[in-house]
Amino acid sequence: MKVQGKPFRTIWLSDDGRGVEIIDQTKLPFEFVTVVLRGRTDAAHAISDMLVRGAPLIGATAAYGMALAMAEDATDEGLNSAYATLMAARPTAVNLRWALDEMKSLLVPLPPQDRQAAAYVRAAEIAEEDVGICSSIGEHGKALIEAAWEKKGRKDPVNVLTHCNAGWLATVDWGTALAPIYKAHDAGVPVHVWVDETRPRNQGASLTSWELGQHGVPHTLIVDNVGGHLMQHGRVDLCIVGTDRTTAAGDVCNKIGTYLKALAAKDNGVPFYVALPGPTIDWTIEDGVRDIPIEERDATEVTEMTGVSADGTVCAVRISPLGTRAANYA
Amino acid sequence: MKVQGKPFRTIWLSDDGRGVEIIDQTKLPFEFVTVVLRGRTDAAHAISDMLVRGAPLIGATAAYGMALAMAEDATDEGLNSAYATLMAARPTAVNLRWALDEMKSLLVPLPPQDRQAAAYVRAAEIAEEDVGICSSIGEHGKALIEAAWEKKGRKDPVNVLTHCNAGWLATVDWGTALAPIYKAHDAGVPVHVWVDETRPRNQGASLTSWELGQHGVPHTLIVDNVGGHLMQHGRVDLCIVGTDRTTAAGDVCNKIGTYLKALAAKDNGVPFYVALPGPTIDWTIEDGVRDIPIEERDATEVTEMTGVSADGTVCAVRISPLGTRAANYA
Repeated sequence: MKVQGKPFRTIWLSDDGRGVEIIDQTKLPFEFVTVVLRGRTDAAHAISDMLVRGAPLIGATAAYGMALAMAEDATDEGLNSAYATLMAARPTAVNLRWALDEMKSLLVPLPPQDRQAAAYVRAAEIAEEDVGICSSIGEHGKALIEAAWEKKGRKDPVNVLTHCNAGWLATVDWGTALAPIYKAHDAGVPVHVWVDETRPRNQGASLTSWELGQHGVPHTLIVDNVGGHLMQHGRVDLCIVGTDRTTAAGDVCNKIGTYLKALAAKDNGVPFYVALPGPTIDWTIEDGVRDIPIEERDATEVTEMTGVSADGTVCAVRISPLGTRAANYA
Repeated sequence: MKVQGKPFRTIWLSDDGRGVEIIDQTKLPFEFVTVVLRGRTDAAHAISDMLVRGAPLIGATAAYGMALAMAEDATDEGLNSAYATLMAARPTAVNLRWALDEMKSLLVPLPPQDRQAAAYVRAAEIAEEDVGICSSIGEHGKALIEAAWEKKGRKDPVNVLTHCNAGWLATVDWGTALAPIYKAHDAGVPVHVWVDETRPRNQGASLTSWELGQHGVPHTLIVDNVGGHLMQHGRVDLCIVGTDRTTAAGDVCNKIGTYLKALAAKDNGVPFYVALPGPTIDWTIEDGVRDIPIEERDATEVTEMTGVSADGTVCAVRISPLGTRAANYA
């Protein structure tokens, strides 16, 4: 996808063929900064401090982290130590574990002198595989947007509502929920996106708005309360969201608030689609409400808001009375 | 209701029997400041600059504004001029027009020397009538909360979800949606309130949290996305909201986002109540979606957030990329 008119992925090999470059997503949307990862410590830090985020991108970064580690120390000890360091960076990320296991099982049987080259090749493949999955989601989804456009007599833009950020920033390229939108836009189908703010972390307001804006896709930021109202007035043609985890029965668990929009879509006859990569299906559970525990995060995400002040500095402001108890279910 | 342990209304007569005191609600929840209105200009300013807000409180302030005007100049000219000044303060407020018409029709037939005394008496009555309406809503609603408590075997607190601020701050006392909660709490029924943040203006995060906290009612602030999730997990016993306007057919139009919570309540079998004062019924319209126009407010309410910074100053921060287009349906 494009940033300031130039095509970018979220992770790529430096010109020297050894360093790995990423976008520091903690600075978005206020600053666009790229960072070069030069060793496994840099890669672990990028994951743990959320310079990279989104399950697919975390997996790709971990794979490249193993490649960086082999360039530093390709012994068995170096391999085991890198595996442990990277695994500890975000212990609950499923794609992280998958990518590290994949790299380890490839590298262990090889003689140390062959490990570096093999690691870089496999890391690139893992990244490429993710691009393939997302591109394929995009093709399937593009057909839905095109069909909606035909249905409108090819007159007005197709209005798509999305929630959270399931864009290329969360993957290596294309994104999941946003892939159909990028494919449709690039194919000349006029598409306009209603971007849910996505409280409390504002991934819609900050990341989705930013990446759609950089790629030139028309979009409008709305607060999370507005989607149902727009649907009641026929101003949403379809909804597309991502998924964090999907049960064997097909229950989709996604960013808090997705459920409310799904209910409104049902009540108004608006098609509601989930951009669903196969690896998000958890075949061990059936009932999303019963089997997926409620995560409760730090309440300051609710009571404080980070933004850029009039003088250009990024800071947090408290929006509720001092001492108000808040709960942050995510 | 109590503030810092002392009972307060939102508007009251000064000890000198002439000045009228209010809470400057623009300073909440960061500062509790009361202001004395000494003339009709002060009253008009309090309304136009939203030191007072909420239809019933605006009406009471306008009535007292006429009383202040009669103390300044009780001639026909003074009366007409005060009416015009106060009416212009917030032209679309229905209660404002009602209260001013009420005062004018009382005062015009009287000789100027009798107008001041009569105006103060009627203004006090108008305020008292609002307290009566809200208190009555509270009694009816308290019975619902008590019934929910009985149903739970009088064990755990009754969990009530509310959206926006329909509390005593919007009325003279008690509030509409919050009146049942205050009545139940004061009667010893354990009640806990889930307070929706209510983006974009954050009336829940700022005003509802503040007034419940001052009166000592247990409550938890949540983002607007969370309510449906809590209902799915049986953590909401009933919902109570206010209404801005109600059609003859019973369609309730309330703060943006109310609809999404009503859908979630229906989907989960959670009772959903509207605290509905008679004057909010508009007998001239039938269909809320068709007949009530979409108000679109300034987009900076979406893209910027006001709060208190680390150094204690109240300021706004921008939370979206520079130049992002936002829409603010209210």
